[in-house]
Amino acid sequence: MEKFDIVIKGRFLISFKHGIIENGIVGIKGPRIEKIFKDGELEYESSQTLGGEDYIVLPGLVNTHTHAAMIAFRGLADDLPLFEWLQKYIWPAEGKFVKADFIKKAVPVAAAEMISTGTTTMADMYFFQDDAAEVLANIGLRSVIAEGIINFPTPTASNWKKQLDYTENFIKNWIGHEVIKPSIGPHAPYTTTPEILERAREIGEKYNIPIQIHVAETKNEVDEIVKKYGKTPVRYLDSVGFLSDLVVSAHSVWLDDEEIDIYVEKHVGIASCPQSNAKLASGIAPHKKFIEKGAKLGLGTDGDASNNSLDMFQEMKFTALICKVFSKDPTSCPAVEVLRAATLTGARVLGYYDLGDLREGYLADVITVKINEPHSTPVYNPVSHLVYAAKGTDVNDVVINGKVIYSDKEFKTIDIENAKYEFTDIVKKINDKYNR
Amino acid sequence: MEKFDIVIKGRFLISFKHGIIENGIVGIKGPRIEKIFKDGELEYESSQTLGGEDYIVLPGLVNTHTHAAMIAFRGLADDLPLFEWLQKYIWPAEGKFVKADFIKKAVPVAAAEMISTGTTTMADMYFFQDDAAEVLANIGLRSVIAEGIINFPTPTASNWKKQLDYTENFIKNWIGHEVIKPSIGPHAPYTTTPEILERAREIGEKYNIPIQIHVAETKNEVDEIVKKYGKTPVRYLDSVGFLSDLVVSAHSVWLDDEEIDIYVEKHVGIASCPQSNAKLASGIAPHKKFIEKGAKLGLGTDGDASNNSLDMFQEMKFTALICKVFSKDPTSCPAVEVLRAATLTGARVLGYYDLGDLREGYLADVITVKINEPHSTPVYNPVSHLVYAAKGTDVNDVVINGKVIYSDKEFKTIDIENAKYEFTDIVKKINDKYNR
Repeated sequence: MEKFDIVIKGRFLISFKHGIIENGIVGIKGPRIEKIFKDGELEYESSQTLGGEDYIVLPGLVNTHTHAAMIAFRGLADDLPLFEWLQKYIWPAEGKFVKADFIKKAVPVAAAEMISTGTTTMADMYFFQDDAAEVLANIGLRSVIAEGIINFPTPTASNWKKQLDYTENFIKNWIGHEVIKPSIGPHAPYTTTPEILERAREIGEKYNIPIQIHVAETKNEVDEIVKKYGKTPVRYLDSVGFLSDLVVSAHSVWLDDEEIDIYVEKHVGIASCPQSNAKLASGIAPHKKFIEKGAKLGLGTDGDASNNSLDMFQEMKFTALICKVFSKDPTSCPAVEVLRAATLTGARVLGYYDLGDLREGYLADVITVKINEPHSTPVYNPVSHLVYAAKGTDVNDVVINGKVIYSDKEFKTIDIENAKYEFTDIVKKINDKYNR
Repeated sequence: MEKFDIVIKGRFLISFKHGIIENGIVGIKGPRIEKIFKDGELEYESSQTLGGEDYIVLPGLVNTHTHAAMIAFRGLADDLPLFEWLQKYIWPAEGKFVKADFIKKAVPVAAAEMISTGTTTMADMYFFQDDAAEVLANIGLRSVIAEGIINFPTPTASNWKKQLDYTENFIKNWIGHEVIKPSIGPHAPYTTTPEILERAREIGEKYNIPIQIHVAETKNEVDEIVKKYGKTPVRYLDSVGFLSDLVVSAHSVWLDDEEIDIYVEKHVGIASCPQSNAKLASGIAPHKKFIEKGAKLGLGTDGDASNNSLDMFQEMKFTALICKVFSKDPTSCPAVEVLRAATLTGARVLGYYDLGDLREGYLADVITVKINEPHSTPVYNPVSHLVYAAKGTDVNDVVINGKVIYSDKEFKTIDIENAKYEFTDIVKKINDKYNR
């Protein structure tokens, strides 16, 4: 008789290793998946049972790029170009409002938004990240966290050297934590210097942690970097020895074929955010080529200020659709490849090699998706269903690191009414000052 | 003391006539909106009260193009080009399965999907539409319904003359009904003849009803029509005298500037389906130009087989985002214009001139959207919120023609468990035969 802490049952169980298993069961012990089996195949006992006949069970979604606390700026200034949006609204608002207290009040609501739409791992770059990490550790959302480092003052520290000091201290505080993975975040080629990039690379390698950076988000950025360094952003980063499998390259919209090849060769992770890139009219990333060339492609929502959701189901459908119409090939970005980017490959992008699939020995980050609503019937193919028809709000249960975080749509580690109430305080101040 | 049948309260009330009203109330008498006012402005009594502090109240969404019964083919064959999808999967499956009984079992679930995501009016083109109309009349979903007419046999009738006879009979059965508007549906330029178009136009004008047609969906179609008639689809339709304000031109992807001008001049309605067009890689419609030139632009989901959702909130966000990135202009398709297309202008596209806004005297098609979930906080601007952050599943109440159809997420006119059960029967047969 096998004994599990949790079993999760599904009409369909999605595994990249084992394929689609009808009436499948995931057996969890401690923080890891112990067994994947078909109902009836094994005698077992379990302390807790989730899922059932009306659910698809799949690996939790991996959001490879966001700025969680920017939930406070959702909808503050839409329908604007990137630089006007940043310079007129976001940067001034950040300068005025972003403090440790802001982070503590905003991040829980963003975490709730992500968890309730099936995200079990997220990569965050923002400020006062020691405070964010504390909040996220308590909630139990797996998070790869980087303090933003730029060549001008941030809300956290007045210059890049102090920002790096903060980062190294932050890394020491959190390295080895069960769900928090500290990381380093040189913001972008256009907001840093070769010296900052070199220091960031050294620290990343020293601690063997992800290095998060925004790359080639807009055509303007490409032009600016070419003007300054005589090379496109990817070639510039390559020339200064920055690129490696530790790098998480957010956006990566404006890459030519050779640059994609460089990313493939150096095993650079891509955190593509197609909804944000579309909303700001930054451009459309070459997803078809990323997949065909075997690039390490993950998906991200970017922050709520530029999306305006943290819903990876939306991001999957948008990616599949924009990929097809942009490449003029309806067979490109098929559902299974998009789901893989949002789970298994996304986990690889963030440096996890035992996460993102339902397979034995992997970390137990698992979600259930309801399939008995009018909008979720019929289900001929559960993978197609997840990418094209399922909604973030169909998520019913979320397990992270073997712990039930969300069950029957109830938060188990967040006092959501209190979190919303505390958040109101920040929202009111922003609304009074900035709302048009 | 004013007396209403229903009042609906919102923290924000969205009206194109009156603007955004904070703490606004819609007062409904019979099938129409009697009054729009601010809380405290008026003494009133009401038999029923919906909404409240946690809701946005807005006109119901208008889905200007779908094929409701195709819900049975959702996810049957994804990641394929339009013609392979039609010829290998959809047409054979339709030939085998689509009968009156199929329509009666599929349409209620599709109606439930639409209602539960805020659609209060939809335009449907399919087969056995007398049966669809009966189902939809009982449910109370406002529907503009056309029997598909093509130059080959359909499941309903063996040739276009019989299909037209069916249509005229259908029109006589339903004209003047409170929520069903009969319509005529010559399928597309490439599946009809000038004679069919001429007869369809005559019948449309005789009864003063919408004429639904697919136009310029793919580049292939344009090439085919140019080869056959020496003109692009819009110019061909114009040359045979087909175009008028009765025409609902679905898709309308491949239009040049002059063709848009023709549509504007002739007051042709556009039913743009950007998600379907992207999924099948058909192309991207010029939404920015449609809006700038003042074209009568509505949005549609197309059928569940090519979307794979009937969720107009998804369609709004997708439209706004793809418009911006395709036009390289983040200020294009601002939220308010996209919401207008999905409500007021969409109603105009379908020939309603007293529908699609919260204003006195208009038909009482009203929805409430919850704004107290983690994904729906904060709300600085409710119009931006509806387009960029709200989800179809945030819809809490739906009133159509002054009747409560959906309340606190419960269907009032559909026995949903029974509808899903009856539908299972069809799904099982299709699954056994066609699932890859």
